[in-house]
Amino acid sequence: MSIKIGIMGYGNLGRGIECAIAQNSDMELVAVFTRRPPETVRILTDGVGVYHIDKALDFKEKIDVLILCGGSATDLPVQTPEYARYFNVVDSFDTHAKIPEHFENVDTAARANGNVAIISSGWDPGMFSLNRLYASAVLPNGRDYTFWGKGVSQGHSDAIRRIEGVLDAKQYTIPVEAALEAVRSGSNPELTTRQKHLRECFVVVAEGADKARIEAEIKNMPNYFADYDTTVHFITAEELRLNHSGIPHGGFVIRSGKTGMNGENSHIIEYSLKLDSNPEFTASVIAAYARAAYKLALKGDSGCKTVFDIAPAMLTLLSDEEIRATLL
Amino acid sequence: MSIKIGIMGYGNLGRGIECAIAQNSDMELVAVFTRRPPETVRILTDGVGVYHIDKALDFKEKIDVLILCGGSATDLPVQTPEYARYFNVVDSFDTHAKIPEHFENVDTAARANGNVAIISSGWDPGMFSLNRLYASAVLPNGRDYTFWGKGVSQGHSDAIRRIEGVLDAKQYTIPVEAALEAVRSGSNPELTTRQKHLRECFVVVAEGADKARIEAEIKNMPNYFADYDTTVHFITAEELRLNHSGIPHGGFVIRSGKTGMNGENSHIIEYSLKLDSNPEFTASVIAAYARAAYKLALKGDSGCKTVFDIAPAMLTLLSDEEIRATLL
Repeated sequence: MSIKIGIMGYGNLGRGIECAIAQNSDMELVAVFTRRPPETVRILTDGVGVYHIDKALDFKEKIDVLILCGGSATDLPVQTPEYARYFNVVDSFDTHAKIPEHFENVDTAARANGNVAIISSGWDPGMFSLNRLYASAVLPNGRDYTFWGKGVSQGHSDAIRRIEGVLDAKQYTIPVEAALEAVRSGSNPELTTRQKHLRECFVVVAEGADKARIEAEIKNMPNYFADYDTTVHFITAEELRLNHSGIPHGGFVIRSGKTGMNGENSHIIEYSLKLDSNPEFTASVIAAYARAAYKLALKGDSGCKTVFDIAPAMLTLLSDEEIRATLL
Repeated sequence: MSIKIGIMGYGNLGRGIECAIAQNSDMELVAVFTRRPPETVRILTDGVGVYHIDKALDFKEKIDVLILCGGSATDLPVQTPEYARYFNVVDSFDTHAKIPEHFENVDTAARANGNVAIISSGWDPGMFSLNRLYASAVLPNGRDYTFWGKGVSQGHSDAIRRIEGVLDAKQYTIPVEAALEAVRSGSNPELTTRQKHLRECFVVVAEGADKARIEAEIKNMPNYFADYDTTVHFITAEELRLNHSGIPHGGFVIRSGKTGMNGENSHIIEYSLKLDSNPEFTASVIAAYARAAYKLALKGDSGCKTVFDIAPAMLTLLSDEEIRATLL
C-alpha cells in the first residue's frame, strides 16, 4: 500500500514536500502541478510527471491526497476550497487572522463532496499551535508565550528589497534572550513587541546608494521595523550569497503555569524548534498530515480539519500496537 | 454543565487531582474513595465526602469520570480493568513495558460495558510520549532522546532507604549537560546510561552508622546506581526536611532529524518540562484527559484509549471555533 500524493505548486515548499515523500516509505509522488510551462520545471524525482495546473482534475482517481503549496495571501484562499471539491487536500494556510473564514470555506467544499481537508498544517500554525493547546489545557492557570527565530522572515526581507537603492536583502528575526529567560523564570512578564524580538538586516545596495537614508527607511518602516530594535549591516552581493543563502527558522512556545490550591507550585512547559530549512520542515509536517488525511478518508470521514482535530496516532506509519509498545 | 469527578486513592496524586479540579471551571469533585477508614482522611475541598473504596459502585450514576490514583505496581493492573466496567476512567499507569497488556485488559472491560478508559496519561508516559510520536512522524529520518530530571526519583529514594543504617533519603536524577548539548548539536550521538544521567543522593543515617559502607552499597546497587555516576551526601534529618522536601521533576524529549534529498538539512525538536511538583503536574495532565474521556463518552465512544488516540481539541474547555481563532 502506498499513499499517492500530488503536489500543487513547485517552489521551496513543493520541493520540500517532494523530499519528505522520499523519506516516508508509505508515500509515492504521482504528479506535480504548476502554473509555469511544465516543460520548464525540473523536479528531483525520476519518472514523475510535471503537468500544467489545468490538468489536475484528470488525476482525480490517481491521487489520494493533493498537497497545496501556494501562498496564503492569494493562492490558498481560492485553491484549497476549489480542490477540496475533488481531492483530499492539505495546505499550510498561515494567515492566522483569516483561519476561521478559510476553515468555513474549505469545510463547505470538502463536506459537500465527501473529502477530507486539513488546513494550516506546518509549524506555526501547526506544531506551535498544538503545543499552545496542550499546554493551556494542562495548565489552565498560566500564560503562554510564542517567540520566533532565529530565522529568516521572507516578508521582512521583501519589504527591505522594495526600498529604492536596495538590490537584495535578508532579514533575521531573533528572540531576545533576556525575554526568554524572564519567561522561563515563571515570572509571567508582560513583554512589549520590542522586548520580545530583535530584527537584524543584511542589505546589498546599488553603487552610490545613500546608505544612511536606506538604514533610516528600514528602521522607521511602520509595522515591519518601527516597533523593534533593528540593526542594519550593508554587505556585498557575494557576502549575502555566501553567508545568508539558507532559510533557517525556529522558535519557542513556552507556557508558565501554577498548580496547587493556592498556586504554590510553578511549572514551565517549553517546546522549541531549530530548523536548518524552514520550507523542508514545514513540508515534513505537511507530509505527516497528508498521511492523516488519507487514513481519515479511508475511515469515511470528511470535512475540514486542523491539527487540533486529528489524533496523534493518525500521523504515523506505525500501527497502534507498535506505538503503544515503543513510544508511549 | 460540569463534569463530575471521583478520585480513587488519596495520596500525592489524588491531592493533585483535587487541586487540578479546582482550576478547571467545568469540573466538580463529587467523591474521594480510600482504603483507609474514611473518617481519618481529610481533604482540601469543603463539602465533598470521603468514602471507603467499597462504596464506589454506589456512585455509578453520580460520577462522569473516575480517576484512579493508585500505584502502577499492584493497584492499577487490578483497579483500572475493574472500575472500567462501571465508570469512565483515567489512570496514569507508568510501567512502560506492561502497557500493551494493561491496554488489552482495560479495553476488554471498558468496551464490554460501553465505557471510555484512558490509560497512561501524565507526562511520561503522556506528554513525553506525544512528543516522541509527533516528532518521529514529522522527522522520520531521525532519532529521539529522552532525558529525565532534574527531579526526585521515588523508586531510587526508596531503594536507599532500605539500606541498613539509613533513616531517610532523597535521590535526584540529573541529565548530563554535555549529553544534552551533544544531542542538540544534531550529531546523533550514541549515549550510554552513564553518559545520559547522574544520580545525586542525600542520605540521613543513624548515629554511629558506617557511612563508608552505606555509600558503597548505594553506588554499587545493581540497576539502580551501579551504571551511573552517583554522588552521596550525608546530611541531617533537619537539612533533608528543609532543603529536600519538594517533589520537583522534569526532563527533555529531543528529536534530531535530517531532511532534503541527501539529508543535507538538520532540525532539532525539543520539548522540556520543569516542574515544581511532579504529582500536581501529572494530575493536571490527567484532569485534561478526564475532560476528553467525558467528551468521548458523550459522543458514544467506548474502549481503552491512550494519549495517541485522542484529538487535542478533546482536552480543552474551549470550543472548536475558539481554539481555531485563538490558538491555531
